[in-house]
Amino acid sequence: MNHSATAFAPASVGNIGVGFDLLGHAIDGPRDLATVRRIAEPQVRIDAIGGDIAGADTLPLDPRRNTAGGALLALREALGLPYGFALELHKGVPLGSGLGGSAASCVAALVAANALLDAPLPREALYRFALDGEAISSGSRHGDNVAPMLLGGVALATEARALRIAAPDWLHAVVVHPDQVLETRRSREVLAAPYPLADVVRQGAHLAQFLLGLQHDDADLLRDGLRDVLVEPRRAPLIPGFSAVKAAALEHGALGASISGGGPSVFAWFDARAAAERAAPAMRQAFVDAGFDARAYVTPVNAPAAEVVARSSAQPAPARAATGA
Amino acid sequence: MNHSATAFAPASVGNIGVGFDLLGHAIDGPRDLATVRRIAEPQVRIDAIGGDIAGADTLPLDPRRNTAGGALLALREALGLPYGFALELHKGVPLGSGLGGSAASCVAALVAANALLDAPLPREALYRFALDGEAISSGSRHGDNVAPMLLGGVALATEARALRIAAPDWLHAVVVHPDQVLETRRSREVLAAPYPLADVVRQGAHLAQFLLGLQHDDADLLRDGLRDVLVEPRRAPLIPGFSAVKAAALEHGALGASISGGGPSVFAWFDARAAAERAAPAMRQAFVDAGFDARAYVTPVNAPAAEVVARSSAQPAPARAATGA
Repeated sequence: MNHSATAFAPASVGNIGVGFDLLGHAIDGPRDLATVRRIAEPQVRIDAIGGDIAGADTLPLDPRRNTAGGALLALREALGLPYGFALELHKGVPLGSGLGGSAASCVAALVAANALLDAPLPREALYRFALDGEAISSGSRHGDNVAPMLLGGVALATEARALRIAAPDWLHAVVVHPDQVLETRRSREVLAAPYPLADVVRQGAHLAQFLLGLQHDDADLLRDGLRDVLVEPRRAPLIPGFSAVKAAALEHGALGASISGGGPSVFAWFDARAAAERAAPAMRQAFVDAGFDARAYVTPVNAPAAEVVARSSAQPAPARAATGA
Repeated sequence: MNHSATAFAPASVGNIGVGFDLLGHAIDGPRDLATVRRIAEPQVRIDAIGGDIAGADTLPLDPRRNTAGGALLALREALGLPYGFALELHKGVPLGSGLGGSAASCVAALVAANALLDAPLPREALYRFALDGEAISSGSRHGDNVAPMLLGGVALATEARALRIAAPDWLHAVVVHPDQVLETRRSREVLAAPYPLADVVRQGAHLAQFLLGLQHDDADLLRDGLRDVLVEPRRAPLIPGFSAVKAAALEHGALGASISGGGPSVFAWFDARAAAERAAPAMRQAFVDAGFDARAYVTPVNAPAAEVVARSSAQPAPARAATGA
């Protein structure tokens, strides 16, 4: 019964500008790995946290204070499992980047653990446990990172529901992550003052055009929709270089560009991979010119969901192989 | 050259709750008629305004102060037409009802006049002139009534664009118009105070679910989406009987119910015509119990767009017959 599985979860763009706390998409780039073992003891244990990124060694091993641990605790409790899980995390998605650094561990752990259940759950059913995990790091149940990680591509995340939204395959994103630290508290504080109706209506128009653009494979609708008039104007001043990076994206034909999640990463969407590849170095350079080293990623918007990448030989593989698909 | 055409424009539900100033749908029920004659004089003239509704005789004959006149003036000017139009209006959509009473005349006149052009415009191209007309009565360029009247069914109306949104044919609405006068100024005033981010995010989630529900013919998504947490809570207290009418709709299985446009009319959506027909008398009765006589209409959400219904025999019919389709 000592099965184990390793799963990855991708980074993700949160908010996608026009869908604050509601929309996100997966990134084919940085990823977290979680190896989960099924153990006889009825508990959740984190044995190790490592990885390529700064701060990985500072993450708590106490499962109740760790997003991945919290998610597995919630899963165990909800299903009344008689056994437990031992977890090892390998972090690849940078923390505090706006790319879902805490969400990725949570989703990778859930997907790995799910593969070890006697009756694995459908992917959507993991969403509530992912929200439980995310709440540990963010203090609230925002699913705009975990939903696209679980489902792949673009996802809508409400309190009750994670829903994949079909998107055209030609859509590509550039995501640039600068070496900046944006204080999360400050990033939230600037959003506190309420919003005038006119801006709310404009944002609604953008959101509707964005969704209809995805539905109809219509770049013009996406261009008109991919505009954030609520959050970006307040947060952009907290990210040195933002305006120049966005300008570089638009000069290279971006459909739109904005802040990923709480920042400081910046994303832009393009109507073809080649256009994204041309824009990426220019966007990165704009951060460099502002005094910050940065990494740029080019990814299809329909990037793959989290998935099991390895299983222990002790596990009856054929029956499980279909569960993560 | 003295051709004439008569067109109808339907009433419409404005806002559809979740899409303030952005979404509307046509109603198969009350309608305005406009008869337009092409005249040699380079002017727009309103010869008569009549009709079934209260206040029709108080509408201005000065085309610059009349929504239909204003729209035809804008059309003439934009196209540089050497000839003019003489207009007669027969009002059927009640004024001040929240059902697009001023918009309907404007759209009917445009659709009739368009049929008299040597090269009629596609329906979408009439939108900007309809906004010009609407601005005369409302003071701002809101297209959530004129767009569905021009296009039929559900429409998205932004400043730049009117777009029909495909909706399932099983969707039906009940629209109840009570004998109440809601002061437009007051109805706008209550919306002035700004909105907290949490409510804006909730409304965004509702809008997204609403649009995805239409896309996927999904009644559950529509039920979760058809909720207005921004405008309805502020306006509902201005409409005596609103809560009881909404409750009657929900008790009869409505997917959702809210205020049509600026009110006082109330609409509800149902997943079948039979359900709407059962709910209609109960919704009407709730207004009656609150002390207001009311009329209830049952309509498919995919109700027909404005259309030419008669042409003068002097007109070369075959060439023109296709233009209003």
